[in-house]
Amino acid sequence: MTPAHFNAPLKSATAFAPATVANIATGFDILGFAIHNLGDRISMTRLERPEVKIESISGLASSTAITLDPAQNTAGVPLLKMIQELGLNFGFSMRIEKGIPLGSGLGGSAASAVGAVVAAHALLPQELKNKLTKERLIHFALEGEAIASGSKHADNIAPCLYGGLTLSHPGDDPDVTVLPYPKTLAVIVVHPEMRLDTKKARGVLKPDLFLKTHIQQSSHLAALVAGCCTSQFHLIKKGLVDLIIEPQRAHLIPGFYEVKRAALESGVLGCSISGAGPSVFAFAESMQIAEHAKNAMIQAFKAHGKMEAQGWVSEVNSDGARVVEAE
Amino acid sequence: MTPAHFNAPLKSATAFAPATVANIATGFDILGFAIHNLGDRISMTRLERPEVKIESISGLASSTAITLDPAQNTAGVPLLKMIQELGLNFGFSMRIEKGIPLGSGLGGSAASAVGAVVAAHALLPQELKNKLTKERLIHFALEGEAIASGSKHADNIAPCLYGGLTLSHPGDDPDVTVLPYPKTLAVIVVHPEMRLDTKKARGVLKPDLFLKTHIQQSSHLAALVAGCCTSQFHLIKKGLVDLIIEPQRAHLIPGFYEVKRAALESGVLGCSISGAGPSVFAFAESMQIAEHAKNAMIQAFKAHGKMEAQGWVSEVNSDGARVVEAE
Repeated sequence: MTPAHFNAPLKSATAFAPATVANIATGFDILGFAIHNLGDRISMTRLERPEVKIESISGLASSTAITLDPAQNTAGVPLLKMIQELGLNFGFSMRIEKGIPLGSGLGGSAASAVGAVVAAHALLPQELKNKLTKERLIHFALEGEAIASGSKHADNIAPCLYGGLTLSHPGDDPDVTVLPYPKTLAVIVVHPEMRLDTKKARGVLKPDLFLKTHIQQSSHLAALVAGCCTSQFHLIKKGLVDLIIEPQRAHLIPGFYEVKRAALESGVLGCSISGAGPSVFAFAESMQIAEHAKNAMIQAFKAHGKMEAQGWVSEVNSDGARVVEAE
Repeated sequence: MTPAHFNAPLKSATAFAPATVANIATGFDILGFAIHNLGDRISMTRLERPEVKIESISGLASSTAITLDPAQNTAGVPLLKMIQELGLNFGFSMRIEKGIPLGSGLGGSAASAVGAVVAAHALLPQELKNKLTKERLIHFALEGEAIASGSKHADNIAPCLYGGLTLSHPGDDPDVTVLPYPKTLAVIVVHPEMRLDTKKARGVLKPDLFLKTHIQQSSHLAALVAGCCTSQFHLIKKGLVDLIIEPQRAHLIPGFYEVKRAALESGVLGCSISGAGPSVFAFAESMQIAEHAKNAMIQAFKAHGKMEAQGWVSEVNSDGARVVEAE
């Protein structure tokens, strides 16, 4: 880009928004991280009038199930809010290429919402662009997540937008903190070919728990956070034991315990449900262990869950959503 | 000590065991830290026969209320266990000088148990001494805590023995982790002149809580741990908001909310109950703020709780219990 063009608004931009793993066993609704190699692509152009159009949704066989009505779509709603709140006199038209399977527990709706916001942000006039920090952008993306899941949860939105491992708070002010983590931490994500509705997965949870369980889980969560912040794998291992959510949701995922056992026998630090499921994630100390575990987990889904499954091995994605093409 | 004496067992040793603040708002039963300037002193000599004697307990007007029967005393029980489990052919006689007020929520029983273990450890033959790591010593001290509080909680024992800020796990294996914390962190502890029984304070707690509350509290706990590990005061501030225990126990401490308000108005990061109470602690970013807050908190106890109170300002004590005299 030459200096003469520097302040000219872009005509089009494509954002890649990564898949994310929310909860991380003991950080239900508050922790999440982004991965590499899997995500949604949102290609955005400017429209003369302040309106939002979704031209197409492609990439997955099930993409046709997603509404093109921007007011009902997880990527459309954030842009309508953006136009309204920023008082824009122009609009956006987008093509969504889904890479993240629907209802997979890998933050697909968050990725579309964040990808749309990041691509649209790239098309704003420079002055406005500079003003909109990630703290402001996250609020637009949360509006999309609310359409998809019925409530504003930042546990996928935050890692998708910021990258890395994130702590966010429930409620209207997620106040995201990007946490340190061991640089060699390897992530395994395995997705069985089934769809699990987030609302259903939330519906099976009891509304209360014993104080005793809260205390035990708190000690695990504290170990997870401390282990990530201080790069101590033995603490992360302790921190991946979920006493509250996993026991209530495991039955929704055929073969879950066998898949988890296969992962643990492969030497991972821990293994649990990714987001609301049915995907399963694990952390390992090395890529070699992670590759081995991924294959064992896929085999276990086939053998015990009677399901085909796809797996990914990755480092934590510290970039988050970003513009990958622009002109 | 000359080389000739190096391997000769010591005849007597005095240990100082610091006061500790357990819970730290959102780390109920799992987090704790040690302070300076307040603690118990245990002076120990060897006895010919494998028995335990408590010669005297002094230091506080209320010291006479404590039993001299080693089998019922928080400092005696750990030594009886030590003699039994290590198969010692000698015993211990001790004088306990209480510095920590009884029933103050400042880890008095933990300090006596840990002080006794640390002083006795100093009197062991060198070979045995080397074998007994803190991981082993903590189990003896926990036996004393169990006599005092009815269960094995390491949240005072761990910071008293290890020093610093500690994470321990509930149950038989506390598996202590010493966490980093900001080096400039200032601590205020204020003790109103009343006694609160730990069992009573435990008795007011409901046995269950809402999942929603667990999630919110988890986000605060994660912020506290991350804030300490990464020296971010704004996270520590968020982490000191306790939604579960403090609201249930506050009424046991006359003037608590006024004392807390006085602390917050003095600019502390947060303020809550120390252990089971009635002492109150606060964290501040500087010693100057801490001194100011201490005075305001003492005044608030007088004005609203109608009680005299004593206060201490300190850094976190990173040493823990240690031998201060030996021959």
